Formats: sequence, C-alpha cells, structure tokens
Amino acid sequence: MLRHDPPRLPQGFRCAAVHCGLKDAGEDLALFASSVPAAAAAVFTRNHFPGAPILVGRERVRSGRLQAVVVNSKVSNVGTGPEGVAAARAMARAAARELDIDEALVLMSSTGVIGVPLPIERIESGLRGMAALLQADPLVGARGMMTTDSHPKAISVEIEGPDGDPAVLTVVAKGSGMIAPNMATMLAYAFTDARLDAPTLDAVLRRVVARTFNMLSVDTDTSTSDTCALLANGLAGPVDPLHFEAALTEACEAMTEMLARDGEGATRLLRVVVRGAATDAEARVVARALVESPLIKTMVHGGDPNVGRILMAVGKCVDVAVDPERVHATLGGLPVVAGGRRAEFDDGTVRATLLLDTVELSVDLGVGSGEARAWGCDLSRGYVDENAAYYSS
Amino acid sequence: MLRHDPPRLPQGFRCAAVHCGLKDAGEDLALFASSVPAAAAAVFTRNHFPGAPILVGRERVRSGRLQAVVVNSKVSNVGTGPEGVAAARAMARAAARELDIDEALVLMSSTGVIGVPLPIERIESGLRGMAALLQADPLVGARGMMTTDSHPKAISVEIEGPDGDPAVLTVVAKGSGMIAPNMATMLAYAFTDARLDAPTLDAVLRRVVARTFNMLSVDTDTSTSDTCALLANGLAGPVDPLHFEAALTEACEAMTEMLARDGEGATRLLRVVVRGAATDAEARVVARALVESPLIKTMVHGGDPNVGRILMAVGKCVDVAVDPERVHATLGGLPVVAGGRRAEFDDGTVRATLLLDTVELSVDLGVGSGEARAWGCDLSRGYVDENAAYYSS
Repeated sequence: MLRHDPPRLPQGFRCAAVHCGLKDAGEDLALFASSVPAAAAAVFTRNHFPGAPILVGRERVRSGRLQAVVVNSKVSNVGTGPEGVAAARAMARAAARELDIDEALVLMSSTGVIGVPLPIERIESGLRGMAALLQADPLVGARGMMTTDSHPKAISVEIEGPDGDPAVLTVVAKGSGMIAPNMATMLAYAFTDARLDAPTLDAVLRRVVARTFNMLSVDTDTSTSDTCALLANGLAGPVDPLHFEAALTEACEAMTEMLARDGEGATRLLRVVVRGAATDAEARVVARALVESPLIKTMVHGGDPNVGRILMAVGKCVDVAVDPERVHATLGGLPVVAGGRRAEFDDGTVRATLLLDTVELSVDLGVGSGEARAWGCDLSRGYVDENAAYYSS
Repeated sequence: MLRHDPPRLPQGFRCAAVHCGLKDAGEDLALFASSVPAAAAAVFTRNHFPGAPILVGRERVRSGRLQAVVVNSKVSNVGTGPEGVAAARAMARAAARELDIDEALVLMSSTGVIGVPLPIERIESGLRGMAALLQADPLVGARGMMTTDSHPKAISVEIEGPDGDPAVLTVVAKGSGMIAPNMATMLAYAFTDARLDAPTLDAVLRRVVARTFNMLSVDTDTSTSDTCALLANGLAGPVDPLHFEAALTEACEAMTEMLARDGEGATRLLRVVVRGAATDAEARVVARALVESPLIKTMVHGGDPNVGRILMAVGKCVDVAVDPERVHATLGGLPVVAGGRRAEFDDGTVRATLLLDTVELSVDLGVGSGEARAWGCDLSRGYVDENAAYYSS
C-alpha cells in the first residue's frame, strides 16, 4: 500500500493549530474540518470517569455524521461535572461558528491534566480567525494536540478506487503516557475522502482498533479521554470496504508503533508476537502481559539479556493455558527460550538485539493456534522524571 | 499484641547464614531448623513456570511436617528442567545430612536469576559446618536470603498461651522486586513454638496470606519462586487458633509493609484502603489498580498533587461497579476527590502529605460495603536502574 511521505490530508479536509494560552508556549488548540459533512464513527474510552468531551461525543456520533474536530491540549476537562459538559459544548459551538457549520457536526476532545476546569474563554478566543489558517498538512493540526509527545504524528495511505483515482486515508494522533487504550487510544482521528456509510465505518473502526490501538500499552494506565474518530467525506467516491479496512489497519498499525516508540521516556519500540495460544483472546492476555511487564521493559531498556523474565511474564498469566515444556521464545529471531528453558545463546548477541531501535519478542505457547500482537516500549528514568512532576511543571 | 524488638526466633528454632560463593560477596545461603519436627503448611506461586524448589516443596509439604528450611540467593533454579529438580533435592539432602534429620523434612527455596543452573556443589560445600553456626537471631538467616533487599527482614510477636507462658511467632522474609504475589510472597517463613495441627495451619495461612502478602505489589510481576511456609514445633504448648490467626495476621501485615517500603527503588510506602465497593473482591481489584498504577506511583514519588490520576485508576477498572458521582478519596486524611470530582484543596498541603514516609490513599466507592487494603511503593529512577542491569551486574 502506498504511503505518502510527508503525509497529507485527503481532499476536502484541512486543519490548523494556534496557541490560545492553555500552555505557556506552543500550539495548544487544533481544528480539523471537512468542506462537506462526512459519514462518521467513533470509539471512546471505557474508563468510568470519561471526560466531558466523551459524554458529549458519544451522543453526537450517533447521527453517523461529523464535519469537524476541535481539540485542545494541557487540560482534559475530566472530573469537571456539568460545568465541564457545558464547556465542551461551548467549545464545539465556537468551532461551528468559526466554520459556519452546524454545531452538532463538531466533535470536541480535550487532553491534559484531569480534574481542573477548562479555560473555555481562551479556547473561544483562540478559535476566532482559525478558519483562515486551515491548510492541508496534517502535522500542523497534530502539533496543536500534543501533550508529552516529542513530535506530531500523522500517517497517510492510498486506497485504490474502482475507477483508477485512489482515495486517501490519513490518521492523526497524539499520546505518550496514560496509554493502555480500552476501545480507543488517547486521541486519534482518521480522515478519508473515500465514500463509505456510517454503519460500515463503525464496524471497520471497531475491528481495526481492537487489533491495533487496543493492543498498545505504554504504562497500563487507561486514559479518561481516549477517543478514536473516523470521518469519510466521500469526495473521492466509493471504495471496496475490504480495501478500506486493509488501509485503515495498515495506517493504525503504523500509528500504534509511532505512539509506542514515542511513549513517555521510551528509547525503543517493543513489539510482541504471541502464537500457539489456545485462543486469540488468550494470546492477547499473554502479549499484553509481556509488553506491560516492568521487568521485561527494564530488561529491554538496559539491554540486559535476563531472558528468564520472559518465562516469569508468560507464567504469571495464571488463567491462560500454558504447557511450560512447549514454550519457545525468540528475541529479534534469536532463540532465547526453548522448551520452557533458557536456550543456549551468546549474551553479547542477545544484548545487541535488545539495544536495537525495535525489539521484537516472539513467543510460541505450543498449545493451539491463537495469535496476537501487542506494542509497547522500554521503561526508563525518563518515564519517572516526566510523571513525577507532570502536574507541577 | 506484644512485638519483640529486636526480633528473636521461638524456642527450638535456630538459624545461620554463610557465604558459599554464589554471590561475589556477602551471605548467600541460609538455614533455619527446629530441634524437633514441626507441623507445617505452605503456599506457593501460581506462576506457570514454578522453580524446581516449588515442584519439590509442593510434594514435601503434603505430609504436614517440616523441620528445616534451606534457602540460597543469587540463582532461583527456575526453568532448569529435571537437572534443576535433582539439584533442589540434593540441596535438601545436604542440609538434612548436616542437621542429621530426615531429608523429607527439609524445605528448600532458591531466589535470584531465572533460567541458569544452580551451582549445587557450592551449596553442598557451604552447608558443611553450618549446624555449628545455628543461633537465635532471625536477622542472621534473613541476611542469607537477600537479593536486592536493602536490609534483612524479621518480625516477632507473642501469642498468649492458655497457661500464662506466651508462644512466639516469627516471620522472616525477603523480596524487593518481581513482587505481585499470587498465593504467597517472594519468600516468607513463619516459625512458631505454638502447638497447632497441620490442617489448622494450612487454613489459617491461606486466609492470612490472601489479606496480606497477596495484596502487595511492587511491580505487578509475579515471581516464579514465591513461597510462604509456616512451621509450628509445639514446644510452647497449644494456643487458641483465633489468637494465633490474629498474631499471624499482625506479623504478616507488618512484614508486607516492610517489604513494600523496601521495594526496588522505593522511597516511601503506599498503603491503599478501598471501602464502599459492591464486594470485597471488587474492592481488591480497585485497591490493586491503585497501588500498581505507574501514574499514581510516580505522583507519590514526585510529591505531585496530580490527584485526577486517582479518578483515572479507579475508572480503568471497567468490570467493577463504580458510580462516578459517589466516589470520594483522601490522601493522608485530606479530601482530594469529592463526588467524583477533584476536591478543593491546597496544593502545598497535599504535596506535603505525598512526601511523608507512608502515604495513605483511601477511596470510598459509595456503592456497597466491600473493603480491601493493598500495599505498594512509589516508582523511582532507582527501580529502572536496578532492573536494567540485574542480570549483568
């Protein structure tokens, strides 16, 4: 599948970002808009304390139609009660006024500190004039929604259309900590000019998110703001839904890896593949246990060939069918566990594998045909440093 | 209940420790022995890759009788196959020979790196002459089984006997990382001169461990070596089983806090109390989520009053009954969450509470009468540093 590098928004979509005064400096408000209303679907966090934008967003996406997304960073508008809900609605209303569209077609997201009031006046005044700034580079909008991300994130892929002209799919996301999505990742928006109806978008989005963003864990902590929305404005005409699902899978998988690699404090990407489980569900449990284990994550960080920890992390999944003597594991293709025991290997070779930019850990349980993949990152001093003073700094 | 400070072993029990050459320096082999056979019970890890000592120990404790425990540190004898099981048996045999007792009465434990062969010859030669070193201070034995622990750990309490003379209960333990026990903690041995039968010991031990060691989490990673054994040699005569259970609960709870406070890299103890859950089981899920959350742990480490993270961590327990508007939380008694929202508080006061040696987080879910407590610690650079080079150093 063709990847656009640099990424660009599909036809009819544009975005902008400004500094509206929530952060001390840098863009903190982003706006994404389509020239025409788009079919839409979205999934949201399952956390019991969803932010006000989630409460409003769940209602709004029921219509299956959206035309714009407005996002602020620094303050998440979570745990803010009825005032928070009113602020979320006001934020969408201000964006709708600026774009001269129906406010029911605007989805809003907020990300940042939990439990403090949203400075809605700053957002309203920041939105004034943003329509004139709209342009086609998705990284501009991505920059306006960053919190601890070290860089803005966007990916574009092409989807073959029936009559030659390809459609474009672009995924824009942010997320670096509090990342263990449950039904969606931190904040991710997929825009396409392909034409698909809302029920199809909803079904495809749920399947793809389950295999990609929901298998990402930076720190096991599930955000109260997780949102993943998909807007299809149809300007490029219809596409085969199977081709579309393949494109969305590719883009979301690439974005999942981009998010994992930029996890708070992360110095490398950890990709885990589990095969041979009794079921796919059991494979997912083991894959998550491996990417989430602090002892696996620190082993990767230090390039320490302490591979017995792989046995520990597989073995702690006590409700999963495991036959210890049939467990095999490789790191970057090198056998490190054979028949449930540490394999013979050269420490220096394994150390070199652990110090690669991408560490691939593959485990075969040998009991069935269940498979899963999960993504995470190493655990470093940087994670501790960022999160021991996030509120205060 | 009377605590002995310094702790001492109950009558008839003695211990010793030596350096046998597993570590570069320091004691690495401990022996605990009773002058007479004791009634005994034990619980072991539920990890799918139990160490060889667990496999042999499970068989051995079925008789309900033990007289000695031999423990080495540095190498855990896990993932070592039939040779590992033979080495575990040889370790017990050597201890039995030295003590001149039946080898079936010796429980053995190994703790340290997973997946490397146990240097059994060093242990056998280390055991020679240890009988002559046996003495009454439990901290001496505790020192021989330390891995990353910063100090040896033992607690003694008295149990009132029916005829005036109290019995003594002493718990000796080690454990600092890979601590999220499941049926037992890393390594803990309880010795008492009270007289109780093995079935009573077994029932009491399981109840107490469920409320204490099993609610401890340093890093969510469940060891392959977890063992908690209880030996009662009866020399002080019978005691009321209810008094005994109270004493064991007190000692194990105090030891749980001692282990949490000495968690790898820990600078303070985090004690979580959850009330008002639908059931005790649901309270346990929430209590564990709170002590295990990296974002709560780093908040405590940095003294950062980012209390919205409490909502996040309660809320991510998606299978637990939570009514967001009825959730209240306090830190060191100070209200920080009220009715599911951040309470009004002074940042400096909360910061001061978070920087205390013991941080007590209390959450009331307001939906029922289920309760639980859990123990953990903050997450620091020290945890990363220790675990990024554990094998290599």
